[in-house]
Amino acid sequence: MVPHLITALTGPINELEQRILESMPAIERWFRLEWMEHTPPFYSSVDVRNAGFKLAPVDTNLFPGGFNNLTEEMLPLAVQAAMAAIEKICPEAKNLLLIPEKHTRNTFYLMNVQRLVQIFHQAGLNVRLGTLDDTIQEPTTLNLPDGSTLAVEPLLRTKRRLGLKDFDPCTILLNNDLSAGLPQVLEGLHEQYLLPPLHAGWAVRRKSNHFQAYEEVAKKFAKLLGMDPWLINPMFAKCGQVNFAEGAGIDCLQSNADALLSKIRRKYKEYGIQEKPFVIVKADAGTYGMGIMTVRDAKDLTELNRKTRNKMSVIKDGQEVTEVIIQEGVPTYERVNDGVAEPVVYMIDRYVVGGFYRVHAERGIDENLNAPGASFVPLAFAESNHLPKPGAKPGASAPNRFYMYGVIARLAMLAGSYELEATDPDAETYD
Amino acid sequence: MVPHLITALTGPINELEQRILESMPAIERWFRLEWMEHTPPFYSSVDVRNAGFKLAPVDTNLFPGGFNNLTEEMLPLAVQAAMAAIEKICPEAKNLLLIPEKHTRNTFYLMNVQRLVQIFHQAGLNVRLGTLDDTIQEPTTLNLPDGSTLAVEPLLRTKRRLGLKDFDPCTILLNNDLSAGLPQVLEGLHEQYLLPPLHAGWAVRRKSNHFQAYEEVAKKFAKLLGMDPWLINPMFAKCGQVNFAEGAGIDCLQSNADALLSKIRRKYKEYGIQEKPFVIVKADAGTYGMGIMTVRDAKDLTELNRKTRNKMSVIKDGQEVTEVIIQEGVPTYERVNDGVAEPVVYMIDRYVVGGFYRVHAERGIDENLNAPGASFVPLAFAESNHLPKPGAKPGASAPNRFYMYGVIARLAMLAGSYELEATDPDAETYD
Repeated sequence: MVPHLITALTGPINELEQRILESMPAIERWFRLEWMEHTPPFYSSVDVRNAGFKLAPVDTNLFPGGFNNLTEEMLPLAVQAAMAAIEKICPEAKNLLLIPEKHTRNTFYLMNVQRLVQIFHQAGLNVRLGTLDDTIQEPTTLNLPDGSTLAVEPLLRTKRRLGLKDFDPCTILLNNDLSAGLPQVLEGLHEQYLLPPLHAGWAVRRKSNHFQAYEEVAKKFAKLLGMDPWLINPMFAKCGQVNFAEGAGIDCLQSNADALLSKIRRKYKEYGIQEKPFVIVKADAGTYGMGIMTVRDAKDLTELNRKTRNKMSVIKDGQEVTEVIIQEGVPTYERVNDGVAEPVVYMIDRYVVGGFYRVHAERGIDENLNAPGASFVPLAFAESNHLPKPGAKPGASAPNRFYMYGVIARLAMLAGSYELEATDPDAETYD
Repeated sequence: MVPHLITALTGPINELEQRILESMPAIERWFRLEWMEHTPPFYSSVDVRNAGFKLAPVDTNLFPGGFNNLTEEMLPLAVQAAMAAIEKICPEAKNLLLIPEKHTRNTFYLMNVQRLVQIFHQAGLNVRLGTLDDTIQEPTTLNLPDGSTLAVEPLLRTKRRLGLKDFDPCTILLNNDLSAGLPQVLEGLHEQYLLPPLHAGWAVRRKSNHFQAYEEVAKKFAKLLGMDPWLINPMFAKCGQVNFAEGAGIDCLQSNADALLSKIRRKYKEYGIQEKPFVIVKADAGTYGMGIMTVRDAKDLTELNRKTRNKMSVIKDGQEVTEVIIQEGVPTYERVNDGVAEPVVYMIDRYVVGGFYRVHAERGIDENLNAPGASFVPLAFAESNHLPKPGAKPGASAPNRFYMYGVIARLAMLAGSYELEATDPDAETYD
């Protein structure tokens, strides 16, 4: 099944598809050369939105959940990529300690954990789960909807190493995005590989750093292809001192939103796009589709009602929002069964291993789809559909469209790599 | 569809399957450590035979054809493995020169070439075909059964480099096994990567070197798993001065066949195997299922008729047979649609990328199946079937059986790596 792209203006993206297909060897070589200089994030998922006139990543997750939404057919690809990743990091590894999120009652999330265990076990590691939840003092069995179980164990920290009872891992893989802050138990682990690094967690990470890195990547890539980087790059601005509850810093938001809306308007005019621009206001740190707002007119920001203020004030794990990113809104014109849909692309190491559509029947084309009520349609990326099919008419071939999505997602992953290098607190600096 | 394993004695292999599954992390780690010391062949395919009481590789092809027999679903896996291989060898590569076999009228073979072009193009390379056929002086278009075409071009050699007109490759990939001898045009190319290396071609390579290396690998692996290496290792002997046409050297064949049959008989007795042992006599260099004979009694070798002598004398490209390997025969008890079947496993770099069953309705369980009349059933290895499925009963699960085949095939690939290192004419020696 191929989602429908419902928009009159598909010219720019069809042209982009054409150019990406023609330039495939050059693009793949460019990625290879980038990976000689930069280390890809261990794993990642990227939300992509296709507006017909523009195709851009809107969120890059460095602690991806949802691996369970990938089809079974993609498992070999994920296992092979995991093997490649392990070989690079710790080839002599026997044991992998996986630290998931604490919310052990969310069975959807547990299915994701189960899938990760499966992938890394089949890549040749003994995988066990350690929890950051202090209330778990004994090995605890969690039941999954399919009748299987997962065992979660309390962490054992020594001066230099982290492990479990009778389990000393070479690598510690975080599937916990550290929204609640940097846990002390994870600090100072210089003998083991902790992946992703601590500064990839939302306690440190900022979306604005990511999209600044993405802008750099998009410009390089656009130069390679001889195109306008705006076609793949969502513009953004940020405000550092916002307090929605008290109404502080709203003037910063307003002036930035206004300026950004003007910039988008100019671009729309340049490309003859008959749409009303919008921006997305969201927490600069954090995830889970919380604290997100669509703004079509900067004036709207002065008249926020109590409900919206509350919604924007606090995100996951009760963290208060003070830093805010204002991002160019990219409408999504893809539909699956009449629901608004956006592709999510999954990567392990530098490889695209699968993807699915996030579909939300009750949300608009200019709204965040990562919200309760979303469903997941893995079909479209299944099998060999992410490999391009040269010769097909632009816009008419699912494989070609998905290859293009995979390229854009890898650009965002590369930006993640730039971002982590730029924000690494332990980075050596050369003057 | 899963082929039937038709034999009363499946105990030893079911036990092996069980042990391989339980030891999966240890096995994968062992491979990772081996690949730190040894370079995998660029690509390979391995014929495996499952006798129920024994599971062994019987042929390792370092210039695999038949990629077209893999399913479409396996393409992403092959592309990902090809990407990993290229990254290691020549990440800055733009161009790949593929040198296929000369037989340009064999459309099955051309479909294989087309599939290879597709895999390496999708891995991000400009791929063009150069031919060793001196009669092709101009770019020549070859027609394929599916209506597509391939362009084959004459090679252009300069003092230091090999290429085509307006095409200077970083890597030259041979899909020609050099049975006809070492072409001068390929010699002295020190600036480019020539893969597989010249000494992997049948002009230099010997099966006996391969199986000597395999014996070493099998012993190491058997030690890891605590089992008898014979369960996965076909015994062999060789004769260096045989002339079938003139009847010379037959005494060497006979005494070796006799000794080998006795050794097999002892092993059969040890394991309570109620079978009549046999050995396979074949050319020590060469391929294409030519020059192969099944021998159940060493006396049979004294009474070879003219037809058999002729058959054994000359193999591919008219090469005369003088060196002969005598290999323990491993019956195959797998059946697809009543035809005798053997799995063939395909690898690119260190990764299993797919496989199929070679099926021959008119051949016996103790005969070579690589012969006219063979057909190919790709189904069984499709999708995620080569990933193991823990918990299934030994012998009852196709994924587990195929994971085991993938392990055995990788042992043979590793032996190929040992073999190429041992026979490398340019190897540095440290005293």
